[in-house]
Amino acid sequence: MDKIYDLAIIGGGPAGYVAAERAGAKGLSVVIFDMRSLGGVCLNEGCIPTKTLLNSAKVLEYAEEAGKYGIHVENISIDFKKIMLRKDKVVRKLVAGIGAKMKHAKADVVMAKATIKEKRGEVITIEADGQDYQANRLLVCAGSEAAVPPIPGLDASQILTNREILQLKEKPESLVIIGGGVIGTEFADFFNAMGTKVTVIEMLPEILTGVDEEIAAFVRKEFVKKGIEFHLKARVTKLNGKEVVFEKDGQEMKITGDQVLLSVGRKINVAGIGLENIGVEFTPKGVKIDQNCRTNVPNVYAAGDITGFSLLAHTASREGEVAVNHMLGRKDMMRYDAIPGVVYTHPEIAGVGLTESAAKEKGIEVEVKQLPMAYAGRFVAENEGKDGFCKVIVGKKYREILGIHMVGGACSEMIWGACAIIEAQLRVQDVEEIVFPHPTVSEIIKETIFQF
Amino acid sequence: MDKIYDLAIIGGGPAGYVAAERAGAKGLSVVIFDMRSLGGVCLNEGCIPTKTLLNSAKVLEYAEEAGKYGIHVENISIDFKKIMLRKDKVVRKLVAGIGAKMKHAKADVVMAKATIKEKRGEVITIEADGQDYQANRLLVCAGSEAAVPPIPGLDASQILTNREILQLKEKPESLVIIGGGVIGTEFADFFNAMGTKVTVIEMLPEILTGVDEEIAAFVRKEFVKKGIEFHLKARVTKLNGKEVVFEKDGQEMKITGDQVLLSVGRKINVAGIGLENIGVEFTPKGVKIDQNCRTNVPNVYAAGDITGFSLLAHTASREGEVAVNHMLGRKDMMRYDAIPGVVYTHPEIAGVGLTESAAKEKGIEVEVKQLPMAYAGRFVAENEGKDGFCKVIVGKKYREILGIHMVGGACSEMIWGACAIIEAQLRVQDVEEIVFPHPTVSEIIKETIFQF
Repeated sequence: MDKIYDLAIIGGGPAGYVAAERAGAKGLSVVIFDMRSLGGVCLNEGCIPTKTLLNSAKVLEYAEEAGKYGIHVENISIDFKKIMLRKDKVVRKLVAGIGAKMKHAKADVVMAKATIKEKRGEVITIEADGQDYQANRLLVCAGSEAAVPPIPGLDASQILTNREILQLKEKPESLVIIGGGVIGTEFADFFNAMGTKVTVIEMLPEILTGVDEEIAAFVRKEFVKKGIEFHLKARVTKLNGKEVVFEKDGQEMKITGDQVLLSVGRKINVAGIGLENIGVEFTPKGVKIDQNCRTNVPNVYAAGDITGFSLLAHTASREGEVAVNHMLGRKDMMRYDAIPGVVYTHPEIAGVGLTESAAKEKGIEVEVKQLPMAYAGRFVAENEGKDGFCKVIVGKKYREILGIHMVGGACSEMIWGACAIIEAQLRVQDVEEIVFPHPTVSEIIKETIFQF
Repeated sequence: MDKIYDLAIIGGGPAGYVAAERAGAKGLSVVIFDMRSLGGVCLNEGCIPTKTLLNSAKVLEYAEEAGKYGIHVENISIDFKKIMLRKDKVVRKLVAGIGAKMKHAKADVVMAKATIKEKRGEVITIEADGQDYQANRLLVCAGSEAAVPPIPGLDASQILTNREILQLKEKPESLVIIGGGVIGTEFADFFNAMGTKVTVIEMLPEILTGVDEEIAAFVRKEFVKKGIEFHLKARVTKLNGKEVVFEKDGQEMKITGDQVLLSVGRKINVAGIGLENIGVEFTPKGVKIDQNCRTNVPNVYAAGDITGFSLLAHTASREGEVAVNHMLGRKDMMRYDAIPGVVYTHPEIAGVGLTESAAKEKGIEVEVKQLPMAYAGRFVAENEGKDGFCKVIVGKKYREILGIHMVGGACSEMIWGACAIIEAQLRVQDVEEIVFPHPTVSEIIKETIFQF
């Protein structure tokens, strides 16, 4: 208790552990609290487990389509238990990896719920597991959890969120998914691949809000071909156990699932951590921060989902870095113009920067060009009978690249370069001068930009 | 014959067809000659067919390893004929695609050997198939072909080059590959996957000259695990039919292959196209060009393998673009600092910029950092029991990114971003501010850069 840390971090997710890593590397003494498991939602019940599951779905798809490429296989079968166990193994390995990173950063890890008690002068006191910890700076990154809207009958139903569905021991015969956002869509793809009959109920006219509308519609159509059923503009009104009642086109409809997944958004964890005890300003939508990730209280920072900005792991990590850089007196600032978004369905979706519709909403004059993925020779070589496209948004006046959006191929691994060129504010001509490796699918970006 | 084209292009490979496309888009009238097939070596007997074959090898590997991911398959078998036929189909489709692009560019395509006859004033005359064509500008991109060194017995042996091996109807039981460069290594990987016993004979101490030495050694060791045999520092001295005689450690050794592939380099096609008729300077190593891809003769440009620079398709395309831009009076210039190199083996290799040893040779003071791919969560999720790494080279003084080299994952699709940041001359701190999508393997680049 005598020790005063340079930095206390509440929450060991992508904001917290990255901040601890960066701060430790620069010599700050760090204590980091987590009430569940290092890695946060992302590693334990989000990004990583779902990507591991979706990889098994990809391997299955490769096997099912192997014949197209001259490789014959017989008697394909799915070992659902093994797939789920492997997911646990991957998560455990990566959680251990973060533990090792914390050790390397010489950060003390406290696995307990932390509550902010008080701030006296510079010193902030945090209580965890009956013990007090003190630090000169605080980074709050307590994250978010699945939102549970007030649907009649919800409490009594044994509905699943992203947390529980990852613990299933048996493959459900059927699955009703309430909410067609990224989480809902990724689970839809995985369980459909496993042979589960999947139905998605979405309130809006299209799935995947925030994603380029044309891409979202493209993926939805691909999913329909795969056998997933969609109810768009459908509002869930009631739950009777595993029966979901919803309204669509003025009619009441009912559908019963072996399991029901609720994925209608996230609730920000601003409550119960004692923010009010030191006067940190927040609303239910998140803690208010400035461009250096500072809250209104000196030396108290916030990062990740708790800020309510983008609810993405990589935004969280970046905010954590910006906060630490500010503590260290290094010039840095958070920008949200080049935050990529990836959906790990098959086909994959990846985009960064303005979408066409976002540009319109903001009144920014843009030009838009688009090319099919098959314009890239490697896509043709590797994707028999498949499709996809790349769309680029360019500012009309300065011809700067404002947005790149793709579906198909390994676009999730291609998009970081698009983040780089938007972050570096490159223009059409600058990108034309970049030599893209041939033959790669990534060439589609250059070719699309050449259309301007 | 009355028409005088704005631009005549000799060679329809990646330099020629891209130049025709770009020139056509800007309104130049173009005639393009090719004596074999549009797309050149790259599309017809290089990049594209080999990548199509290697994709079948990848699909096979997915099937063989599916069990790791909870997907069981039985009785995996390879249909070699179908794999080769699919490769032909992909090539045909893409050749047709280039034909369509030429049409769209309103370029006249002449499928015949072209010879430069004369230049009178501005007008250059080219003969093809007994007919004369005239143009105000000429772009020479006649490419290269497999080099055939003077090995005793070579003429009589029915040795294959990259061209003939792609025409095989039957899978060879065994294959001896002379030359462990990119071409040799990619074919080694493919045929080994097909079940052929493969032996590679390389004159130098390591395969894949030009690739980061540690990466080359890593891949060689992976190949050895897969059953490929290597003879390094081995000089072929004689061929007796399909028997290859070579010297290694002062000893003479012999090995007989069902087939023998010769892949020891490329011969530049400077002969027989009439360069001398208009006074274009060249050596056996290539046509001399300046940074705008101009030869010594006004309005005569050269691009692609014929310049002897990098012998890569994407360099060729870029040179073609630079030449066209110069014709159009648009400021542009060829730079060779950020030319990526990709090897499509499993694992994949991708690199751009300086290697550690190239920096040393040039006397540039650099720092080098390296991280295993498994540092990226998605790599762990998708690559059970696999390995790889990322190495970054940074200038000591200005901390600018000088080189990025990777092995493992979909690094071929990740590398273009590295080309972008090297081309844009970004420094360590600039890259730290880029938000990389999580979880992707591409994060390994950011994490490696964070080590500086």
